[in-house]
Amino acid sequence: MSFAERLAAAVIQTDTSLCVGIDPWADRLPGRGALSAPTRPQLADLARRFGLAVVKAAASQVPAVKPQFAFFEALGPEGMFALAEVCSAARSAGLLVIGDAKRGDIGSTATAYAEATLSTNAPFPCDALTVSPFLGPDTIAPFLSVAEANDRGLFVLLRTSNAGSARWQEPVVDDLSAWIDAQNAERGAYGPIGAVVGATHRDVSLVLRAAMPHTWFLVPGFGAQGGSAADAKLALRADGLGALIVSARGATFPATPTPEYDDDPIGWIRRRIAATRAELAAG
Amino acid sequence: MSFAERLAAAVIQTDTSLCVGIDPWADRLPGRGALSAPTRPQLADLARRFGLAVVKAAASQVPAVKPQFAFFEALGPEGMFALAEVCSAARSAGLLVIGDAKRGDIGSTATAYAEATLSTNAPFPCDALTVSPFLGPDTIAPFLSVAEANDRGLFVLLRTSNAGSARWQEPVVDDLSAWIDAQNAERGAYGPIGAVVGATHRDVSLVLRAAMPHTWFLVPGFGAQGGSAADAKLALRADGLGALIVSARGATFPATPTPEYDDDPIGWIRRRIAATRAELAAG
Repeated sequence: MSFAERLAAAVIQTDTSLCVGIDPWADRLPGRGALSAPTRPQLADLARRFGLAVVKAAASQVPAVKPQFAFFEALGPEGMFALAEVCSAARSAGLLVIGDAKRGDIGSTATAYAEATLSTNAPFPCDALTVSPFLGPDTIAPFLSVAEANDRGLFVLLRTSNAGSARWQEPVVDDLSAWIDAQNAERGAYGPIGAVVGATHRDVSLVLRAAMPHTWFLVPGFGAQGGSAADAKLALRADGLGALIVSARGATFPATPTPEYDDDPIGWIRRRIAATRAELAAG
Repeated sequence: MSFAERLAAAVIQTDTSLCVGIDPWADRLPGRGALSAPTRPQLADLARRFGLAVVKAAASQVPAVKPQFAFFEALGPEGMFALAEVCSAARSAGLLVIGDAKRGDIGSTATAYAEATLSTNAPFPCDALTVSPFLGPDTIAPFLSVAEANDRGLFVLLRTSNAGSARWQEPVVDDLSAWIDAQNAERGAYGPIGAVVGATHRDVSLVLRAAMPHTWFLVPGFGAQGGSAADAKLALRADGLGALIVSARGATFPATPTPEYDDDPIGWIRRRIAATRAELAAG
Protein backbone atom coordinates (compact mmCIF):
# COMPACT_ATOMS: atom_id res chain seq x y z
CA MET A 1 0.00 0.00 0.00
CA SER A 2 1.14 3.53 -0.69
CA PHE A 3 1.83 5.89 2.20
CA ALA A 4 -1.39 7.82 1.51
CA GLU A 5 -3.39 4.58 1.58
CA ARG A 6 -1.73 3.42 4.80
CA LEU A 7 -2.46 6.80 6.36
CA ALA A 8 -6.15 6.66 5.41
CA ALA A 9 -6.46 3.10 6.72
CA ALA A 10 -4.83 4.04 10.03
CA VAL A 11 -7.10 7.06 10.54
CA ILE A 12 -10.19 4.96 9.78
CA GLN A 13 -9.08 2.12 12.04
CA THR A 14 -8.33 4.32 15.06
CA ASP A 15 -11.25 6.66 14.30
CA THR A 16 -9.18 9.79 14.93
CA SER A 17 -6.87 12.17 13.08
CA LEU A 18 -4.77 12.79 16.18
CA CYS A 19 -1.02 12.44 15.77
CA VAL A 20 0.93 12.46 19.03
CA GLY A 21 4.20 14.40 19.01
CA ILE A 22 7.25 13.00 20.82
CA ASP A 23 9.21 16.03 22.06
CA PRO A 24 11.72 14.86 24.70
CA TRP A 25 12.38 18.27 26.17
CA ALA A 26 15.27 17.64 28.57
CA ASP A 27 13.81 19.69 31.44
CA ARG A 28 10.44 17.94 31.47
CA LEU A 29 11.27 14.26 31.08
CA PRO A 30 9.68 11.80 33.53
CA GLY A 31 12.29 11.05 36.19
CA ARG A 32 14.21 14.27 35.51
CA GLY A 33 13.45 15.66 38.97
CA ALA A 34 15.26 12.77 40.67
CA LEU A 35 18.60 13.68 39.04
CA SER A 36 20.38 16.78 40.33
CA ALA A 37 22.98 17.29 37.61
CA PRO A 38 22.28 14.72 34.89
CA THR A 39 24.89 13.92 32.25
CA ARG A 40 23.91 13.94 28.60
CA PRO A 41 23.85 10.09 28.40
CA GLN A 42 21.55 10.04 31.47
CA LEU A 43 19.20 12.52 29.77
CA ALA A 44 19.35 10.47 26.56
CA ASP A 45 18.24 7.44 28.56
CA LEU A 46 15.33 9.41 30.05
CA ALA A 47 14.42 10.58 26.53
CA ARG A 48 14.49 6.98 25.33
CA ARG A 49 12.21 5.87 28.18
CA PHE A 50 9.88 8.82 27.58
CA GLY A 51 9.68 8.06 23.84
CA LEU A 52 8.95 4.39 24.50
CA ALA A 53 6.28 5.38 27.06
CA VAL A 54 4.54 7.59 24.48
CA VAL A 55 4.67 4.74 21.97
CA LYS A 56 3.08 2.30 24.43
CA ALA A 57 0.43 4.85 25.43
CA ALA A 58 -0.36 5.81 21.83
CA ALA A 59 -0.49 2.33 20.26
CA SER A 60 -3.98 1.47 18.93
CA GLN A 61 -5.32 4.85 20.18
CA VAL A 62 -4.01 7.03 17.32
CA PRO A 63 -2.76 6.47 13.77
CA ALA A 64 0.63 8.13 14.10
CA VAL A 65 3.35 9.60 16.27
CA LYS A 66 5.72 12.43 15.36
CA PRO A 67 9.18 12.30 16.95
CA GLN A 68 10.89 15.69 16.90
CA PHE A 69 14.50 15.05 15.82
CA ALA A 70 15.85 18.28 17.37
CA PHE A 71 15.33 17.20 20.97
CA PHE A 72 17.12 13.91 20.37
CA GLU A 73 19.96 15.61 18.48
CA ALA A 74 20.44 18.04 21.38
CA LEU A 75 21.28 15.00 23.53
CA GLY A 76 24.16 14.06 21.25
CA PRO A 77 24.93 10.69 19.62
CA GLU A 78 23.37 8.93 22.64
CA GLY A 79 20.19 10.88 21.91
CA MET A 80 20.30 9.64 18.33
CA PHE A 81 20.49 6.05 19.59
CA ALA A 82 17.35 6.81 21.61
CA LEU A 83 15.65 8.25 18.50
CA ALA A 84 16.48 5.14 16.47
CA GLU A 85 15.00 2.90 19.17
CA VAL A 86 11.84 5.00 19.54
CA CYS A 87 11.22 5.07 15.76
CA SER A 88 11.65 1.28 15.53
CA ALA A 89 9.43 0.62 18.54
CA ALA A 90 6.67 2.83 17.15
CA ARG A 91 6.66 1.05 13.79
CA SER A 92 6.66 -2.33 15.56
CA ALA A 93 3.65 -1.16 17.59
CA GLY A 94 1.75 -0.48 14.36
CA LEU A 95 2.03 3.31 14.55
CA LEU A 96 2.94 5.38 11.53
CA VAL A 97 6.07 7.41 12.28
CA ILE A 98 6.25 10.98 10.98
CA GLY A 99 9.87 12.03 11.42
CA ASP A 100 9.83 15.74 12.16
CA ALA A 101 13.27 16.77 10.96
CA LYS A 102 12.47 19.54 8.44
CA ARG A 103 15.40 18.41 6.32
CA GLY A 104 16.33 19.96 3.00
CA ASP A 105 19.44 19.82 0.83
CA ILE A 106 20.56 19.27 -2.73
CA GLY A 107 21.29 16.18 -4.83
CA SER A 108 23.15 13.35 -3.14
CA THR A 109 22.99 15.17 0.20
CA ALA A 110 19.19 15.11 0.10
CA THR A 111 19.40 11.43 -0.80
CA ALA A 112 21.55 10.82 2.29
CA TYR A 113 18.92 12.42 4.55
CA ALA A 114 16.22 10.36 2.83
CA GLU A 115 18.21 7.12 3.20
CA ALA A 116 18.65 7.89 6.91
CA THR A 117 14.88 7.84 7.44
CA LEU A 118 12.86 6.49 4.51
CA SER A 119 14.80 3.49 3.18
CA THR A 120 13.94 -0.07 4.21
CA ASN A 121 17.05 -0.37 6.39
CA ALA A 122 17.11 3.24 7.56
CA PRO A 123 18.83 3.79 10.90
CA PHE A 124 15.99 6.15 11.96
CA PRO A 125 13.01 4.37 10.35
CA CYS A 126 10.08 6.67 9.53
CA ASP A 127 6.97 6.35 7.37
CA ALA A 128 7.20 10.00 6.38
CA LEU A 129 9.62 12.89 6.84
CA THR A 130 9.00 16.63 7.12
CA VAL A 131 10.98 18.45 4.44
CA SER A 132 11.70 22.13 3.71
CA PRO A 133 11.03 23.20 0.11
CA PHE A 134 13.16 26.38 0.22
CA LEU A 135 16.00 24.99 -1.91
CA GLY A 136 13.65 24.26 -4.81
CA PRO A 137 11.65 21.49 -6.48
CA ASP A 138 14.81 19.73 -7.73
CA THR A 139 15.80 19.25 -4.07
CA ILE A 140 12.48 17.62 -3.12
CA ALA A 141 12.91 15.09 -5.94
CA PRO A 142 15.60 12.96 -4.21
CA PHE A 143 13.45 12.71 -1.06
CA LEU A 144 10.43 11.78 -3.17
CA SER A 145 12.38 9.17 -5.07
CA VAL A 146 13.46 7.32 -1.89
CA ALA A 147 10.00 7.76 -0.35
CA GLU A 148 8.10 6.34 -3.32
CA ALA A 149 10.47 3.42 -3.77
CA ASN A 150 9.64 2.34 -0.21
CA ASP A 151 5.96 3.36 0.10
CA ARG A 152 6.86 6.22 2.41
CA GLY A 153 5.77 9.85 2.27
CA LEU A 154 6.83 13.45 2.77
CA PHE A 155 5.27 16.45 4.46
CA VAL A 156 6.57 19.61 2.82
CA LEU A 157 6.53 22.83 4.88
CA LEU A 158 3.90 25.08 3.32
CA ARG A 159 2.41 27.44 5.93
CA THR A 160 3.75 26.83 9.42
CA SER A 161 2.05 27.61 12.73
CA ASN A 162 4.43 30.29 14.07
CA ALA A 163 3.62 34.01 14.15
CA GLY A 164 6.26 35.01 11.58
CA SER A 165 5.53 32.31 9.01
CA ALA A 166 3.86 34.61 6.48
CA ARG A 167 6.94 36.67 5.68
CA TRP A 168 8.87 34.20 3.49
CA GLN A 169 6.08 31.64 2.92
CA GLU A 170 3.22 33.88 1.70
CA PRO A 171 5.14 35.03 -1.44
CA VAL A 172 5.49 31.41 -2.62
CA VAL A 173 2.44 29.70 -1.11
CA ASP A 174 0.30 29.76 -4.29
CA ASP A 175 3.01 28.33 -6.52
CA LEU A 176 4.24 25.82 -3.93
CA SER A 177 0.75 24.54 -3.07
CA ALA A 178 -0.09 24.15 -6.77
CA TRP A 179 3.21 22.31 -7.37
CA ILE A 180 2.60 19.89 -4.49
CA ASP A 181 -0.98 19.08 -5.45
CA ALA A 182 -0.06 18.65 -9.12
CA GLN A 183 2.67 16.16 -8.18
CA ASN A 184 0.11 14.19 -6.19
CA ALA A 185 -2.61 14.39 -8.86
CA GLU A 186 -0.18 12.82 -11.37
CA ARG A 187 0.16 9.85 -9.04
CA GLY A 188 -3.52 9.14 -8.31
CA ALA A 189 -6.21 10.26 -5.92
CA TYR A 190 -3.95 11.07 -2.95
CA GLY A 191 -0.23 11.33 -3.40
CA PRO A 192 2.88 10.85 -1.28
CA ILE A 193 3.65 14.56 -0.75
CA GLY A 194 1.80 15.97 2.23
CA ALA A 195 1.93 19.59 3.34
CA VAL A 196 2.50 21.18 6.76
CA VAL A 197 -0.28 23.70 7.38
CA GLY A 198 -0.58 25.20 10.88
CA ALA A 199 -3.89 25.31 12.72
CA THR A 200 -3.26 28.92 13.69
CA HIS A 201 -4.29 30.59 10.40
CA ARG A 202 -8.00 29.84 9.77
CA ASP A 203 -8.34 31.67 6.44
CA VAL A 204 -5.21 30.06 5.05
CA SER A 205 -6.35 26.57 6.06
CA LEU A 206 -9.65 27.02 4.25
CA VAL A 207 -8.03 28.28 1.06
CA LEU A 208 -5.35 25.60 1.00
CA ARG A 209 -7.77 22.75 1.81
CA ALA A 210 -9.91 23.76 -1.18
CA ALA A 211 -6.90 24.23 -3.46
CA MET A 212 -5.18 20.91 -2.65
CA PRO A 213 -7.67 18.04 -2.97
CA HIS A 214 -4.96 15.40 -3.54
CA THR A 215 -2.83 16.33 -0.55
CA TRP A 216 -2.70 15.16 3.09
CA PHE A 217 -2.01 17.91 5.61
CA LEU A 218 0.05 17.69 8.78
CA VAL A 219 -1.40 20.24 11.17
CA PRO A 220 0.67 21.56 14.08
CA GLY A 221 -0.56 24.32 16.38
CA PHE A 222 -3.51 22.52 17.99
CA GLY A 223 -3.59 23.02 21.76
CA ALA A 224 -0.36 24.43 23.22
CA GLN A 225 0.16 26.80 20.28
CA GLY A 226 -3.35 28.28 20.43
CA GLY A 227 -5.27 26.59 17.60
CA SER A 228 -8.67 25.17 18.65
CA ALA A 229 -9.97 21.74 17.64
CA ALA A 230 -12.35 23.48 15.23
CA ASP A 231 -9.48 25.46 13.69
CA ALA A 232 -7.43 22.29 13.26
CA LYS A 233 -10.32 20.42 11.67
CA LEU A 234 -10.54 22.96 8.83
CA ALA A 235 -7.72 20.89 7.36
CA LEU A 236 -9.97 17.84 7.00
CA ARG A 237 -11.68 17.03 3.74
CA ALA A 238 -15.46 16.50 3.62
CA ASP A 239 -14.89 12.73 4.03
CA GLY A 240 -13.17 13.33 7.38
CA LEU A 241 -9.79 12.22 6.04
CA GLY A 242 -6.92 14.25 4.63
CA ALA A 243 -5.20 15.56 7.76
CA LEU A 244 -3.14 14.47 10.74
CA ILE A 245 -3.65 16.88 13.63
CA VAL A 246 -0.70 17.07 16.00
CA SER A 247 -0.68 17.42 19.75
CA ALA A 248 2.73 17.09 21.38
CA ARG A 249 3.31 18.67 24.76
CA GLY A 250 -0.39 18.88 25.61
CA ALA A 251 -0.76 15.12 25.17
CA THR A 252 2.49 14.02 26.78
CA PHE A 253 3.56 16.44 29.56
CA PRO A 254 1.71 17.77 32.61
CA ALA A 255 1.48 21.57 32.81
CA THR A 256 3.28 21.46 36.17
CA PRO A 257 5.39 18.60 37.59
CA THR A 258 3.27 15.92 39.26
CA PRO A 259 4.34 12.72 41.07
CA GLU A 260 1.65 10.70 39.24
CA TYR A 261 3.46 11.44 35.98
CA ASP A 262 6.84 10.25 37.25
CA ASP A 263 5.28 7.16 38.89
CA ASP A 264 3.39 5.94 35.84
CA PRO A 265 4.20 7.90 32.69
CA ILE A 266 2.57 5.35 30.36
CA GLY A 267 -0.75 5.46 32.25
CA TRP A 268 -0.64 9.26 32.57
CA ILE A 269 0.10 9.76 28.86
CA ARG A 270 -2.53 7.16 27.84
CA ARG A 271 -5.23 9.06 29.77
CA ARG A 272 -4.01 12.40 28.36
CA ILE A 273 -4.08 11.05 24.80
CA ALA A 274 -7.63 9.75 25.34
CA ALA A 275 -8.70 13.18 26.60
CA THR A 276 -7.03 14.99 23.68
CA ARG A 277 -8.66 12.55 21.26
CA ALA A 278 -12.07 13.32 22.79
CA GLU A 279 -11.40 17.07 22.71
CA LEU A 280 -10.57 16.84 19.02
CA ALA A 281 -13.66 14.72 18.26
CA ALA A 282 -15.95 17.19 20.07
CA GLY A 283 -14.40 20.33 18.56
CA MET B 1 36.22 37.83 19.57
CA SER B 2 32.96 37.65 17.66
CA PHE B 3 32.47 34.97 15.01
CA ALA B 4 32.88 37.53 12.20
CA GLU B 5 36.17 38.73 13.73
CA ARG B 6 37.45 35.16 14.16
CA LEU B 7 36.53 34.42 10.56
CA ALA B 8 38.40 37.47 9.25
CA ALA B 9 41.46 36.62 11.38
CA ALA B 10 41.49 33.02 10.12
CA VAL B 11 41.23 34.07 6.45
CA ILE B 12 44.05 36.59 6.89
CA GLN B 13 46.27 34.13 8.76
CA THR B 14 45.90 31.31 6.22
CA ASP B 15 45.83 33.74 3.27
CA THR B 16 42.92 31.96 1.59
CA SER B 17 39.11 31.97 1.59
CA LEU B 18 38.96 28.24 0.90
CA CYS B 19 36.70 26.19 3.17
CA VAL B 20 37.09 22.43 2.81
CA GLY B 21 33.88 20.42 2.90
CA ILE B 22 33.78 17.10 4.75
CA ASP B 23 31.28 14.90 2.85
CA PRO B 24 31.77 11.28 3.93
CA TRP B 25 29.96 9.72 1.01
CA ALA B 26 29.75 6.04 1.97
CA ASP B 27 30.75 4.74 -1.49
CA ARG B 28 33.92 6.81 -1.76
CA LEU B 29 35.54 6.59 1.65
CA PRO B 30 39.23 5.65 1.83
CA GLY B 31 39.43 1.95 2.65
CA ARG B 32 35.90 1.29 1.35
CA GLY B 33 37.16 -0.91 -1.49
CA ALA B 34 38.70 -3.40 0.97
CA LEU B 35 35.29 -4.22 2.52
CA SER B 36 32.90 -6.32 0.46
CA ALA B 37 29.67 -5.85 2.44
CA PRO B 38 30.39 -3.30 5.16
CA THR B 39 28.03 -2.87 8.09
CA ARG B 40 26.83 0.58 9.04
CA PRO B 41 29.19 0.75 12.08
CA GLN B 42 32.11 -0.18 9.79
CA LEU B 43 31.16 2.61 7.39
CA ALA B 44 30.80 5.02 10.33
CA ASP B 45 34.35 4.14 11.37
CA LEU B 46 35.61 4.81 7.83
CA ALA B 47 33.71 8.13 7.86
CA ARG B 48 35.36 9.02 11.18
CA ARG B 49 38.83 8.23 9.80
CA PHE B 50 38.09 10.16 6.60
CA GLY B 51 36.87 13.20 8.58
CA LEU B 52 39.94 13.13 10.83
CA ALA B 53 42.17 12.81 7.75
CA VAL B 54 40.59 15.90 6.19
CA VAL B 55 41.09 17.78 9.49
CA LYS B 56 44.79 16.85 9.64
CA ALA B 57 45.27 17.74 5.96
CA ALA B 58 43.39 21.05 6.25
CA ALA B 59 44.90 22.33 9.52
CA SER B 60 46.92 25.56 9.01
CA GLN B 61 46.23 25.44 5.24
CA VAL B 62 42.68 26.85 5.31
CA PRO B 63 40.53 28.82 7.76
CA ALA B 64 37.58 26.44 7.99
CA VAL B 65 36.06 23.06 7.30
CA LYS B 66 32.40 22.30 6.59
CA PRO B 67 31.15 18.90 7.75
CA GLN B 68 27.95 17.87 5.96
CA PHE B 69 25.65 16.45 8.64
CA ALA B 70 23.54 14.41 6.19
CA PHE B 71 26.29 11.92 5.34
CA PHE B 72 26.99 11.25 9.01
CA GLU B 73 23.26 10.96 9.82
CA ALA B 74 22.85 8.40 7.02
CA LEU B 75 25.30 6.19 8.94
CA GLY B 76 23.03 6.17 11.98
CA PRO B 77 23.88 6.93 15.62
CA GLU B 78 27.40 5.56 15.04
CA GLY B 79 27.77 8.13 12.27
CA MET B 80 26.73 10.84 14.70
CA PHE B 81 29.49 9.72 17.09
CA ALA B 82 31.90 10.13 14.16
CA LEU B 83 30.52 13.61 13.44
CA ALA B 84 30.98 14.66 17.08
CA GLU B 85 34.60 13.48 17.04
CA VAL B 86 35.38 15.18 13.71
CA CYS B 87 33.88 18.52 14.86
CA SER B 88 35.88 18.41 18.10
CA ALA B 89 39.10 17.45 16.35
CA ALA B 90 38.72 20.27 13.84
CA ARG B 91 38.21 22.89 16.54
CA SER B 92 41.19 21.49 18.47
CA ALA B 93 43.27 21.80 15.30
CA GLY B 94 42.43 25.52 15.11
CA LEU B 95 39.98 25.20 12.23
CA LEU B 96 36.65 26.98 12.25
CA VAL B 97 33.84 24.45 11.90
CA ILE B 98 30.87 25.38 9.71
CA GLY B 99 28.20 22.78 10.49
CA ASP B 100 26.27 22.23 7.27
CA ALA B 101 22.95 21.01 8.63
CA LYS B 102 20.47 23.49 7.09
CA ARG B 103 18.37 23.31 10.24
CA GLY B 104 15.21 25.31 10.79
CA ASP B 105 12.35 25.05 13.27
CA ILE B 106 10.28 27.13 15.65
CA GLY B 107 10.77 28.28 19.25
CA SER B 108 12.22 25.78 21.69
CA THR B 109 12.81 23.29 18.86
CA ALA B 110 15.10 25.76 17.11
CA THR B 111 16.85 26.32 20.43
CA ALA B 112 17.43 22.55 20.74
CA TYR B 113 19.13 22.45 17.31
CA ALA B 114 21.22 25.47 18.28
CA GLU B 115 22.23 23.92 21.62
CA ALA B 116 23.27 20.76 19.78
CA THR B 117 25.85 22.70 17.76
CA LEU B 118 26.51 26.25 18.99
CA SER B 119 26.57 26.06 22.80
CA THR B 120 29.83 25.78 24.76
CA ASN B 121 29.17 22.14 25.64
CA ALA B 122 27.44 21.21 22.38
CA PRO B 123 27.68 17.50 21.47
CA PHE B 124 28.44 18.49 17.84
CA PRO B 125 30.58 21.59 18.40
CA CYS B 126 30.52 24.08 15.53
CA ASP B 127 31.58 27.71 15.11
CA ALA B 128 28.66 28.35 12.77
CA LEU B 129 25.61 26.50 11.51
CA THR B 130 23.77 26.69 8.18
CA VAL B 131 20.11 27.54 8.77
CA SER B 132 17.01 27.66 6.56
CA PRO B 133 14.99 30.89 6.82
CA PHE B 134 11.77 29.48 5.34
CA LEU B 135 9.86 29.34 8.65
CA GLY B 136 10.34 33.09 9.22
CA PRO B 137 12.48 35.63 11.07
CA ASP B 138 11.06 34.61 14.47
CA THR B 139 12.54 31.14 13.88
CA ILE B 140 16.05 32.47 13.15
CA ALA B 141 15.99 34.39 16.45
CA PRO B 142 16.54 31.35 18.74
CA PHE B 143 19.53 30.24 16.63
CA LEU B 144 20.93 33.77 16.73
CA SER B 145 20.47 34.03 20.46
CA VAL B 146 22.50 30.87 21.18
CA ALA B 147 25.09 31.83 18.54
CA GLU B 148 25.69 35.33 19.88
CA ALA B 149 25.87 34.18 23.50
CA ASN B 150 28.78 31.92 22.52
CA ASP B 151 30.53 34.01 19.82
CA ARG B 152 29.31 31.65 17.11
CA GLY B 153 27.62 32.47 13.81
CA LEU B 154 24.97 31.41 11.33
CA PHE B 155 24.86 31.09 7.55
CA VAL B 156 21.27 31.55 6.36
CA LEU B 157 20.30 30.00 3.04
CA LEU B 158 19.72 32.88 0.61
CA ARG B 159 20.43 31.79 -2.96
CA THR B 160 21.69 28.23 -3.22
CA SER B 161 23.84 26.72 -5.97
CA ASN B 162 21.36 24.19 -7.43
CA ALA B 163 19.55 24.64 -10.74
CA GLY B 164 16.08 25.00 -9.22
CA SER B 165 16.97 27.44 -6.46
CA ALA B 166 15.32 30.47 -8.05
CA ARG B 167 11.74 29.17 -7.85
CA TRP B 168 11.07 29.66 -4.11
CA GLN B 169 14.08 31.83 -3.26
CA GLU B 170 13.85 34.58 -5.92
CA PRO B 171 10.42 35.84 -4.64
CA VAL B 172 11.90 36.53 -1.18
CA VAL B 173 15.56 37.25 -1.92
CA ASP B 174 15.27 41.06 -1.77
CA ASP B 175 13.44 41.09 1.55
CA LEU B 176 15.53 38.30 3.08
CA SER B 177 18.86 39.81 2.03
CA ALA B 178 17.82 43.21 3.40
CA TRP B 179 16.68 41.62 6.67
CA ILE B 180 19.97 39.74 7.12
CA ASP B 181 22.18 42.73 6.39
CA ALA B 182 20.10 45.01 8.62
CA GLN B 183 20.46 42.56 11.53
CA ASN B 184 24.22 42.60 11.02
CA ALA B 185 24.45 46.39 10.60
CA GLU B 186 22.75 46.82 13.99
CA ARG B 187 25.54 44.78 15.55
CA GLY B 188 28.57 46.55 14.03
CA ALA B 189 30.68 46.34 10.90
CA TYR B 190 30.22 42.62 10.21
CA GLY B 191 27.57 40.65 11.99
CA PRO B 192 27.03 37.03 13.02
CA ILE B 193 24.49 36.16 10.29
CA GLY B 194 26.18 35.02 7.13
CA ALA B 195 24.37 34.05 3.94
CA VAL B 196 24.69 31.05 1.64
CA VAL B 197 25.11 32.32 -1.94
CA GLY B 198 26.05 29.79 -4.63
CA ALA B 199 28.90 30.44 -7.06
CA THR B 200 26.72 29.31 -9.95
CA HIS B 201 24.69 32.51 -10.44
CA ARG B 202 27.13 35.34 -11.41
CA ASP B 203 24.58 38.14 -11.69
CA VAL B 204 22.99 37.26 -8.37
CA SER B 205 26.36 37.16 -6.60
CA LEU B 206 27.21 40.66 -7.84
CA VAL B 207 23.88 42.13 -6.78
CA LEU B 208 23.91 40.47 -3.35
CA ARG B 209 27.56 41.35 -2.63
CA ALA B 210 26.77 45.02 -3.29
CA ALA B 211 23.53 44.91 -1.28
CA MET B 212 24.97 43.19 1.82
CA PRO B 213 28.12 44.98 2.96
CA HIS B 214 27.85 43.73 6.57
CA THR B 215 27.42 40.07 5.71
CA TRP B 216 29.84 37.16 5.25
CA PHE B 217 28.93 34.76 2.43
CA LEU B 218 29.35 31.00 2.36
CA VAL B 219 29.81 30.05 -1.29
CA PRO B 220 29.13 26.50 -2.46
CA GLY B 221 29.26 25.50 -6.10
CA PHE B 222 32.98 26.09 -6.78
CA GLY B 223 34.55 23.20 -8.71
CA ALA B 224 32.42 20.05 -8.81
CA GLN B 225 29.18 22.02 -9.23
CA GLY B 226 30.48 24.11 -12.15
CA GLY B 227 31.32 27.52 -10.65
CA SER B 228 34.77 28.81 -11.62
CA ALA B 229 37.24 30.41 -9.19
CA ALA B 230 36.42 33.78 -10.76
CA ASP B 231 32.68 33.17 -10.28
CA ALA B 232 33.21 32.22 -6.64
CA LYS B 233 35.39 35.26 -5.97
CA LEU B 234 32.54 37.61 -6.93
CA ALA B 235 31.38 36.99 -3.36
CA LEU B 236 34.51 38.68 -1.92
CA ARG B 237 34.46 42.29 -0.84
CA ALA B 238 37.01 44.74 -2.22
CA ASP B 239 39.25 44.07 0.80
CA GLY B 240 39.45 40.37 -0.13
CA LEU B 241 37.44 39.27 2.91
CA GLY B 242 33.72 38.57 3.29
CA ALA B 243 33.38 35.07 1.87
CA LEU B 244 34.28 31.45 2.54
CA ILE B 245 34.48 29.54 -0.73
CA VAL B 246 33.72 25.85 -0.38
CA SER B 247 35.31 22.91 -2.13
CA ALA B 248 34.24 19.50 -0.86
CA ARG B 249 34.54 16.52 -3.15
CA GLY B 250 37.08 18.19 -5.45
CA ALA B 251 39.43 18.74 -2.52
CA THR B 252 38.95 15.43 -0.72
CA PHE B 253 38.12 12.61 -3.20
CA PRO B 254 39.89 11.37 -6.34
CA ALA B 255 37.75 11.39 -9.50
CA THR B 256 38.36 7.66 -9.85
CA PRO B 257 39.56 5.22 -7.15
CA THR B 258 43.33 5.23 -6.76
CA PRO B 259 45.59 3.13 -4.47
CA GLU B 260 47.57 6.24 -3.47
CA TYR B 261 44.45 7.65 -1.87
CA ASP B 262 43.75 4.54 0.18
CA ASP B 263 47.44 4.22 1.18
CA ASP B 264 47.88 7.79 2.43
CA PRO B 265 44.60 9.74 2.54
CA ILE B 266 46.06 12.56 4.64
CA GLY B 267 48.92 13.16 2.20
CA TRP B 268 46.65 12.87 -0.82
CA ILE B 269 44.07 15.31 0.62
CA ARG B 270 46.81 17.72 1.77
CA ARG B 271 48.19 17.92 -1.79
CA ARG B 272 44.68 18.28 -3.24
CA ILE B 273 43.83 21.10 -0.82
CA ALA B 274 47.07 22.88 -1.73
CA ALA B 275 46.19 22.58 -5.43
CA THR B 276 42.62 23.82 -4.88
CA ARG B 277 43.96 26.73 -2.81
CA ALA B 278 46.30 27.67 -5.67
CA GLU B 279 43.50 27.33 -8.23
CA LEU B 280 41.34 29.68 -6.20
CA ALA B 281 44.18 32.20 -5.75
CA ALA B 282 44.91 32.22 -9.49
CA GLY B 283 41.26 32.45 -10.60
